[in-house]
Amino acid sequence: MVARYRATLAYDGRAYVGFQRQAGKLATIQGTIETAIAHVTGQTVTVIGAGRTDTGVHAEGQVIAFDVDWRHGNEVLLRALNATLPPDIALQDIRQHAGFHPRFDAEARLYRYTIVQAAQRQPLWRQQAWQTHYELDADAMTAAADVLMGEHDFAAFGKPPQGTSTTRTVYRSAWTAQPMPFGWLRLYHIEANAFLQHMVRRIVGVLVEVGRGNIRHEAFVTALTDGVMMNGVTLAPPEGLVLEAVRYPDDATLLSKRGRRPPEDWNDE
Amino acid sequence: MVARYRATLAYDGRAYVGFQRQAGKLATIQGTIETAIAHVTGQTVTVIGAGRTDTGVHAEGQVIAFDVDWRHGNEVLLRALNATLPPDIALQDIRQHAGFHPRFDAEARLYRYTIVQAAQRQPLWRQQAWQTHYELDADAMTAAADVLMGEHDFAAFGKPPQGTSTTRTVYRSAWTAQPMPFGWLRLYHIEANAFLQHMVRRIVGVLVEVGRGNIRHEAFVTALTDGVMMNGVTLAPPEGLVLEAVRYPDDATLLSKRGRRPPEDWNDE
Repeated sequence: MVARYRATLAYDGRAYVGFQRQAGKLATIQGTIETAIAHVTGQTVTVIGAGRTDTGVHAEGQVIAFDVDWRHGNEVLLRALNATLPPDIALQDIRQHAGFHPRFDAEARLYRYTIVQAAQRQPLWRQQAWQTHYELDADAMTAAADVLMGEHDFAAFGKPPQGTSTTRTVYRSAWTAQPMPFGWLRLYHIEANAFLQHMVRRIVGVLVEVGRGNIRHEAFVTALTDGVMMNGVTLAPPEGLVLEAVRYPDDATLLSKRGRRPPEDWNDE
Repeated sequence: MVARYRATLAYDGRAYVGFQRQAGKLATIQGTIETAIAHVTGQTVTVIGAGRTDTGVHAEGQVIAFDVDWRHGNEVLLRALNATLPPDIALQDIRQHAGFHPRFDAEARLYRYTIVQAAQRQPLWRQQAWQTHYELDADAMTAAADVLMGEHDFAAFGKPPQGTSTTRTVYRSAWTAQPMPFGWLRLYHIEANAFLQHMVRRIVGVLVEVGRGNIRHEAFVTALTDGVMMNGVTLAPPEGLVLEAVRYPDDATLLSKRGRRPPEDWNDE
């Protein structure tokens, strides 16, 4: 009997043009996991993901769902899929969850962005961080990050699907820093109910300009308030971005919410 | 005028058969930096390293020295070499230091070993950690690590160059752990005046067996005391090992010690 499965997925996104399956032969996370499921179960399925991570973006806690007829237990399915998937993709857990939808049911997504600030290249970080030798004012970056907390129109930081809202609610927006032998490891965590396309990378790009002193705090606040994208700010590169986790209500709450799902009016990194 | 230069080197060791230059066309860290120096300065030099890291082992703070005639300043040399070196090797600093010898002058080497303990593969850690799904008893691993502190004959954990001593002094031997979404990140730090060949990876291999409950604390102590290598213990894989730093006396102390250098009676990872 066909059942809905819910799973957590981790991947190194470098070799993929993003989560979402595309026409042609481009490698995608979705396509690769669908191929693995077909190989293991003999069934053609469509995998739904919680977040459409972009080309080169990583995940530790992407959440997916798919429908399949499987009679050998969850643990066997998990092992079979991980034995089939390439080394840069692995399921972390799997279970049956009737009616579960990774996008519609999600309450929040948590992303982490890693910056290595050092005078010279750091070879061991080159594939999982944005490396910059610029001096960064951590206090200024923290003050600007604080401004993003709460519900705002984020038109200044990303485009929505046609004709839909750009309002999102940010639950966490904070920098932490650790000294490294030759620089600083700076992590930015942002959690929100949903994200506009490229929103995290655009925010990080702007926050780094704030940290460099090229954008003043007042200009940052005005951009957010006016909803105007700032000129001359590049997206932070994808290799620094990780979809850390997706947060859901517990199963009982989810069940009581069925039928009151929001329309699919948002995009993602 | 030829001067001695002292530099700190970081590298991702995956693409190299270790630090030390070898006959044939095998890629080594030493050979690659020597080629870069020849390219930048037009001079053929021999690079000396503080630690002979093994195939696939990484470094954040390898220390090297070489003699070259360079008239354009340290900062220019640093930039020119980093522009010439491949992405997986980078100098962190460079300065002139007459008479400096990275091996003979070193007081201590600090290595870090990374274990990711998780039920499933962690794709983002696959190139810089030993991944294991075994349950590990952190208290038992800590108790065994404590035993290594101080001066011991480490014959149970590595072979010396022919006919030389296996006595080393360990200044630090400690585990730390951080929870990950689907497991534990376990770091082992060991600092000693010097190391026998493969010593860190052999120690980690044995400590993991202790953590799995396959070697009892008493057997571990006996092995160290008796100087007998334990059977059936595999070396921890190289991708988890990083030469974090090499410690030296300050320049004035070094100067006063000249002429009283120890013989080169040790090996390294």
